[in-house]
Amino acid sequence: MLLYNSAISGNCYKVRLLLAQLGIEYETREVDVVDRTTGREFLDDINPARRVPTLVLDDGRALAESNAILCYFAEGTEYLPDDRYDRAQVMQWLFFEQYDHEPGVAVARFLLRYSGRAEEFAQLIAERQQQGRRALAAMERWLESHDFLAAGRYTIADIALYAYTHAADEARIELEQYPAVGEWLGRVRAQRGHVPMIT
Amino acid sequence: MLLYNSAISGNCYKVRLLLAQLGIEYETREVDVVDRTTGREFLDDINPARRVPTLVLDDGRALAESNAILCYFAEGTEYLPDDRYDRAQVMQWLFFEQYDHEPGVAVARFLLRYSGRAEEFAQLIAERQQQGRRALAAMERWLESHDFLAAGRYTIADIALYAYTHAADEARIELEQYPAVGEWLGRVRAQRGHVPMIT
Repeated sequence: MLLYNSAISGNCYKVRLLLAQLGIEYETREVDVVDRTTGREFLDDINPARRVPTLVLDDGRALAESNAILCYFAEGTEYLPDDRYDRAQVMQWLFFEQYDHEPGVAVARFLLRYSGRAEEFAQLIAERQQQGRRALAAMERWLESHDFLAAGRYTIADIALYAYTHAADEARIELEQYPAVGEWLGRVRAQRGHVPMIT
Repeated sequence: MLLYNSAISGNCYKVRLLLAQLGIEYETREVDVVDRTTGREFLDDINPARRVPTLVLDDGRALAESNAILCYFAEGTEYLPDDRYDRAQVMQWLFFEQYDHEPGVAVARFLLRYSGRAEEFAQLIAERQQQGRRALAAMERWLESHDFLAAGRYTIADIALYAYTHAADEARIELEQYPAVGEWLGRVRAQRGHVPMIT
């Protein structure tokens, strides 16, 4: 199994974290997500959106979209509940992550830390930080009264939202403003088989 | 069952379309998505993201995120495959829809058609149209050699991407540029129990 990977991408980290916790072996091929001039044509046949992570199974079939890859490997494991409502709650947070959280926190982080053009993008960075803070406030409201995001236990919803939340300081978003989120980060890190983003 | 709904929202339309095809009855309460001054505090207890669609089941439990609601109701029906890889393909397109397609096509459409401030947002509209065109180009590449988005048949992936694609002209994105997408729209409309967005 081959993972087209980026060491600095939280979306790729989600997949690496779940595969580590499941004890699944795979190879990686590093894709430069900063230098866009190299093109992504090699991904065309396997991922219409031309992004990492993209995963090629041993039978040659491809999977894309980080959260869809999480669903694929978590099916039938403790990380994705069987109960219909619990599953819907997991899915709700996975879509929240891609729609509200990632375009805020992850994009601000990328522009500030990795683009090399942070000054040029100052206005966009401020907008994305604001979007990220709204997403963290929504998580905070929920986590004030819940230990985990869905189903009352650690699931792929927590994996998906941990990836960029724990790196929010790189987007210059102060996690101290979100104490319930901070405690939840600790609970996620304490899970069996946890691995950090940069190993 | 109560759906917090907006007649002009494609995200709400997705849910209405699937429920119509499944023959499931529900009530609706209309939420104004244009006038943001009215607040969304009434959604706070049931949806951390404070958006429509939000659905309240008969037992009082709530579901949010349009594509998560699709997954919930499609489970065990012909609209969501059982095969593990087919399901992952469905999920892949659902996340693509929320990350790439909706922020482009739906946001450009909203700003142009419903915000009442299209001139003020001219630059943002142009950016979102460009993002929408990239998403449609990705769909076009796939649909040139596939009748449906996932699993070789009509699924909730098609429902999710039909919602705003069929209204792309309201975002002033020319669908004529994407002939395979145009033929796919016709196949979706031909499905048993199809209902239009505005009834």
